[in-house]
Amino acid sequence: MSDEKTAKRRVTLRDVAQAAGVSLKTASNVINGSGRMTDETRAKVESVIKDLDYRVNVAARNLNRDHTGFITLAVPSLIPPYLAELANRTIDAARQRDYSVYVTTYAEGSAKGARDLLKNFNSTVSDGMILSMSEVEDISPEDLKVDFPLVIVGARTTWGVADHVTPDDVAAAATAAGYLYDRGSSRLAVVGARGDYDAAALLQAVEGNAQLRLRGVIEETRRRGLELDPQLIGNTGQDWTIGAGARVIQRLIDSGVPFDGVIALNDQLAIGALTALRTAGYEVPAQVQVIGFDNNEEAPYLQIPLTTMDSRLDWTAPTAVNRILGRIDGSITKPELLTTESQVIARASTR
Amino acid sequence: MSDEKTAKRRVTLRDVAQAAGVSLKTASNVINGSGRMTDETRAKVESVIKDLDYRVNVAARNLNRDHTGFITLAVPSLIPPYLAELANRTIDAARQRDYSVYVTTYAEGSAKGARDLLKNFNSTVSDGMILSMSEVEDISPEDLKVDFPLVIVGARTTWGVADHVTPDDVAAAATAAGYLYDRGSSRLAVVGARGDYDAAALLQAVEGNAQLRLRGVIEETRRRGLELDPQLIGNTGQDWTIGAGARVIQRLIDSGVPFDGVIALNDQLAIGALTALRTAGYEVPAQVQVIGFDNNEEAPYLQIPLTTMDSRLDWTAPTAVNRILGRIDGSITKPELLTTESQVIARASTR
Repeated sequence: MSDEKTAKRRVTLRDVAQAAGVSLKTASNVINGSGRMTDETRAKVESVIKDLDYRVNVAARNLNRDHTGFITLAVPSLIPPYLAELANRTIDAARQRDYSVYVTTYAEGSAKGARDLLKNFNSTVSDGMILSMSEVEDISPEDLKVDFPLVIVGARTTWGVADHVTPDDVAAAATAAGYLYDRGSSRLAVVGARGDYDAAALLQAVEGNAQLRLRGVIEETRRRGLELDPQLIGNTGQDWTIGAGARVIQRLIDSGVPFDGVIALNDQLAIGALTALRTAGYEVPAQVQVIGFDNNEEAPYLQIPLTTMDSRLDWTAPTAVNRILGRIDGSITKPELLTTESQVIARASTR
Repeated sequence: MSDEKTAKRRVTLRDVAQAAGVSLKTASNVINGSGRMTDETRAKVESVIKDLDYRVNVAARNLNRDHTGFITLAVPSLIPPYLAELANRTIDAARQRDYSVYVTTYAEGSAKGARDLLKNFNSTVSDGMILSMSEVEDISPEDLKVDFPLVIVGARTTWGVADHVTPDDVAAAATAAGYLYDRGSSRLAVVGARGDYDAAALLQAVEGNAQLRLRGVIEETRRRGLELDPQLIGNTGQDWTIGAGARVIQRLIDSGVPFDGVIALNDQLAIGALTALRTAGYEVPAQVQVIGFDNNEEAPYLQIPLTTMDSRLDWTAPTAVNRILGRIDGSITKPELLTTESQVIARASTR
């Protein structure tokens, strides 16, 4: 760098030792609060450290100890409110444990995906990785057999190979469907399927937010002696934005197939669905009830406040951080699935 | 770590050299693609690297070269959509330049604030910092005189000491106010002031989103021979959430002081204002027009789609990344204010 201030050579521990007239070992002991020496010597070294504005070289120190104090959090993107909140809560939970978080994204722009992240993990930069696995990543059990602490969050399977922290998506969706049926809906539309509707395949699903949530809806529907109408399963592909929710509900309205309840597989889709329903003149919740997933910040403030399933990020982030730290310090050694229940947050979009 | 796989000692370059029967220097030359050797020797070392699954120790390498390949992005929080989008775009912009971003937050939980971040910046972890300065940080010019590359984004002043990348908030707010006046509003309410209304002080403001935007509104109002009514300036303190917007507009409605336009200083506040206006029976935009700032993802999908000022994150993130990289490689040496204009995104909440 050509700037005068930044061109300054970094002050090393050797400089400190020389200026204080002590050995490198003694200077190092002062930094680390270890070793024996007179109070005078310690005071002298500390005063030189202050005068020279010496800063501990973290990278150098990390070479000689067993942790960096950083966790990597890898998310597909920070745009979906759910993922931004996950990142924020993970940073907060880590801070409580004196850890910093290096957040990276891998599913946008020229990124090379989760497999590359797993392959190129570098233990000199951080001690372990919390990975929110995107729906579109092509990952095998082999990819998850890594020699560093790894915790997966979200709805992708880990085949028992890696730690896995996730709310129970099947149960949450069954709860959501049951909630609409209990309040008088009998023909449910679903917004957010990733592909064509195949009930038999979905009943076997073990991963994927969309697949697991659809499975929960199908199971609850069958428990009540009903069937979903395949024409009412709105396929959005990977696009779970507000716009996709609006377009898919408009398509269902245009198809003329009647429905009296909407399960939107996230709140963004639900916001779009509410907009399209209102624009088309439907009364919510009198004619059509709507429920979402995630309890986004805006859900209570929509013109029709949105009933939704809580996302349990309050549980996911600290659980994932505790788990990765247990892996890092060696107190946890076996991979495990950690899961929890979600609840209905009832608002005016349902009866 | 006690896990069998993770307890494995890290393979060093020395292990590689020994297994290949070459000197440490030769092994290092293979890694760095430097030095002279026979093709055979190179092939032998490369094969050992593969067999032993040797990975370059980034921290060790960084000690011996002039950059880490990381930028630090420090934001107050990742919850506000504006900041999450800033982080996402910065990561993308950095990736285009083969840089990674370490995102950290400093204004929540037990964080110690931006001053600590600046003081404890460690050049062995990243090469420079892009800092989105919170409104509430107590920062002096001295704090910004740092010996590492620093770019400030957002509406806080940098006293000419550090690089500063920000849209022109005064001009944007004047544009927003003019837009409402041109469409027939004459009594504007403002939602999002940080304190009591003091027009003289605000006209001198040089920093702060709220202060600069209020200054722009006052200036445009005076250019039209009008004055803002101090009773219509809604103080939210630091709370720029949807809930704050709803509460403040409710307070203005209850006060009985008439208004026919609302400038909400961000889109979250505007969403809250729209909810409260509709609930109180006001017709938007016939009786009251509403404009926000930031063009959040949901703004076009509200029951009354929101007119808003674009946030120019499309410009801010790549400009900040280019600037910090210029500082890092030494091609830029003088601090500068980089600024740009914002435009009205017109939707149904205005006439």
